[in-house]
Amino acid sequence: HLSCVTLEHQHLRYNPLRDSWVLVSAHRMKRPWAGQVERPPEEHIPRYDPNNPLCPGNKRANGEGNPDYDSTFVFENDFPALQPDAPDPGSEQDPLFQSKAARGVCKVMCFHPWSDVTLPLMKKEEVVKVIDKWAELVEELGTIYPWVQIFENKGAMMGCSNPHPHCQVWASNFLPNEPALSDRCQRAYYQKHGEPMLLQYAKREAEKKERVVVESSDWLAVVPYWATWPYQTLLLPRRHVLRISDLTTEEREGLAAIMKRLLTKYDNLFEVSFPYSMGWHGAPTGPYLKEDNSHWQLHAHYYPPLLRSATVKKFMVGYEMLAQEQRDLTPEQAAEKLRNLPEDKKGIEL
Amino acid sequence: HLSCVTLEHQHLRYNPLRDSWVLVSAHRMKRPWAGQVERPPEEHIPRYDPNNPLCPGNKRANGEGNPDYDSTFVFENDFPALQPDAPDPGSEQDPLFQSKAARGVCKVMCFHPWSDVTLPLMKKEEVVKVIDKWAELVEELGTIYPWVQIFENKGAMMGCSNPHPHCQVWASNFLPNEPALSDRCQRAYYQKHGEPMLLQYAKREAEKKERVVVESSDWLAVVPYWATWPYQTLLLPRRHVLRISDLTTEEREGLAAIMKRLLTKYDNLFEVSFPYSMGWHGAPTGPYLKEDNSHWQLHAHYYPPLLRSATVKKFMVGYEMLAQEQRDLTPEQAAEKLRNLPEDKKGIEL
Ligand SMILES: O=P(O)(O)O[C@H]1O[C@H](CO)[C@@H](O)[C@H](O)[C@H]1O
Ligand SMILES: O=P(O)(O)O[C@H]1O[C@H](CO)[C@@H](O)[C@H](O)[C@H]1O
Repeated sequence: HLSCVTLEHQHLRYNPLRDSWVLVSAHRMKRPWAGQVERPPEEHIPRYDPNNPLCPGNKRANGEGNPDYDSTFVFENDFPALQPDAPDPGSEQDPLFQSKAARGVCKVMCFHPWSDVTLPLMKKEEVVKVIDKWAELVEELGTIYPWVQIFENKGAMMGCSNPHPHCQVWASNFLPNEPALSDRCQRAYYQKHGEPMLLQYAKREAEKKERVVVESSDWLAVVPYWATWPYQTLLLPRRHVLRISDLTTEEREGLAAIMKRLLTKYDNLFEVSFPYSMGWHGAPTGPYLKEDNSHWQLHAHYYPPLLRSATVKKFMVGYEMLAQEQRDLTPEQAAEKLRNLPEDKKGIEL
Repeated sequence: HLSCVTLEHQHLRYNPLRDSWVLVSAHRMKRPWAGQVERPPEEHIPRYDPNNPLCPGNKRANGEGNPDYDSTFVFENDFPALQPDAPDPGSEQDPLFQSKAARGVCKVMCFHPWSDVTLPLMKKEEVVKVIDKWAELVEELGTIYPWVQIFENKGAMMGCSNPHPHCQVWASNFLPNEPALSDRCQRAYYQKHGEPMLLQYAKREAEKKERVVVESSDWLAVVPYWATWPYQTLLLPRRHVLRISDLTTEEREGLAAIMKRLLTKYDNLFEVSFPYSMGWHGAPTGPYLKEDNSHWQLHAHYYPPLLRSATVKKFMVGYEMLAQEQRDLTPEQAAEKLRNLPEDKKGIEL
């Protein structure tokens, strides 16, 4: 257990997934805030908006019409950052001016036909449908592409420009920086300790309890020891699972249940539809399917920006961009706050 | 020169200072923006505000009074993220729960007695005073501390909570992640190529011209080949200089002049006092003063968030946080735009 000394005074913590350090300065929460205040998230979103390109039956930017979908709905991003046929920029020999071809596909996935719901407000069976579709996309795009990034930007504060519940899936012909780093770290740990890093980590956290937010027989969500964002969480299965497509039916149901619990706590923290960016990391695919990926453990990262209230976020700016990430409350304080929040939400009952 | 193919289509570029890649998808600027719109920066800031703790003669949070300063003014941050006497958290042996002592000092430095000026609006001689003070602080704090991070968060959008022109200086007993990575990359390059990476880079960019924003006999500012933020720039001397304290009187005057030119262009880009986070990276200090740091070259990074207008920024969210940074216009397009802007500013003439 951490001593009071550690909790109250600044110290560094090591992130073994990124081989880097975070500066924890708990007492910084005491400073007054006279800086930027965000607009609170929009509250009255219509269930159906004839002008919203994500709603069932509506027209999108490219002129195509959406079907009258009644569950999840996947389509190609109309302004993709990755395309399957991008030409090769040609190999410059200069080490200071190196470029490479980037090819891939960008998909958008609506979670539900209604615009006024979010994952925590959806029925468990509806969330299971989302998980099944995630697994299907990883399986399908993963036959070719080495990396399939599922991510959700929730809330205008996190760059989301459409309130309809949706996520994105970007598949690429390269292993992006973050998964490449995580792959390296997990591999080195496995070689040294003979067990997947995050599997050992989940066991230790389940025993220690102090950073656990929610748990079930199959799943665990913690504020990781090395969290940088104030209420960042790590969600992972307790069994050794490489990819989301490997989850059993029961594990998918368990995941839907724990996601609803975690996200409801988030909504209850500042009594607002909680903004975040989240995404899944699992063993790489495509050519990596033929390799041994035992060092990998499937997990999701939740990165929520809010720090003090529904309208005051943590700014990852000067020192954080130029030197090192710094946090203003301890991960244990954040976990305790989240743990103590109710798991049912006043509001829309579906 | 880059072919049109590269400019128009997505590709990856390598950042040799961080050993990582950035995804460049120029065509993404074409997508419409229905997302968050920021409040434009405050326009009518009073020259003196009796309630602003940074103004001359005023009281600060800890009850201390500021002197009636008429140039720069340095004081200890009243809510420091680093303190000289933080206790050691004790060494946990577990590789998954590693912590370390973090000690240091946090200083705030006002640039000018007036609240209604910014660096580009100050007289050149006044900017030289700021540079002299930066050099003095690096020299002074660098006798003990291995890293002295000078950084400025400008604008509420970048987490700045006080409009009075100021920066911060955080010195630490550890080499933070970013400089540690940059040190590693520059060292490896030097060992392989026999010349400092950024010195070679500056020469090549000065020849190529396409990414140059402003230059003078001693200094160069470019949108780096690997820029992640839309209008990110790299400012560096053309001579081999390890630390800001090593700059000659002439080089400091040259720096003041080029900073004014660069920052005025920034202000003119969207006709608004341009928000950014910036900071200086130079060879490490303290115990490193005794070592050979020839691989280092002093430089400043400017990271401005705005993408489309004075109120629409680039969101570094889902894909960027979970996978890899992505930009929506090429560095060459950004450099050309900045290069073509005037270097004199309508507005307050001092
Ligand atoms: O110290 P300030 O200006 O109050 O705070 C600002 O800069 C710090 C250093 O980059 C950040 O940690 C804070 O999130 C930001 O709001
Ligand atoms: O694709 P969207 O939702 O329009 O855009 C959002 O997510 C992208 C992927 O994280 C980011 O690059 C954009 O800056 C952000 O606004």
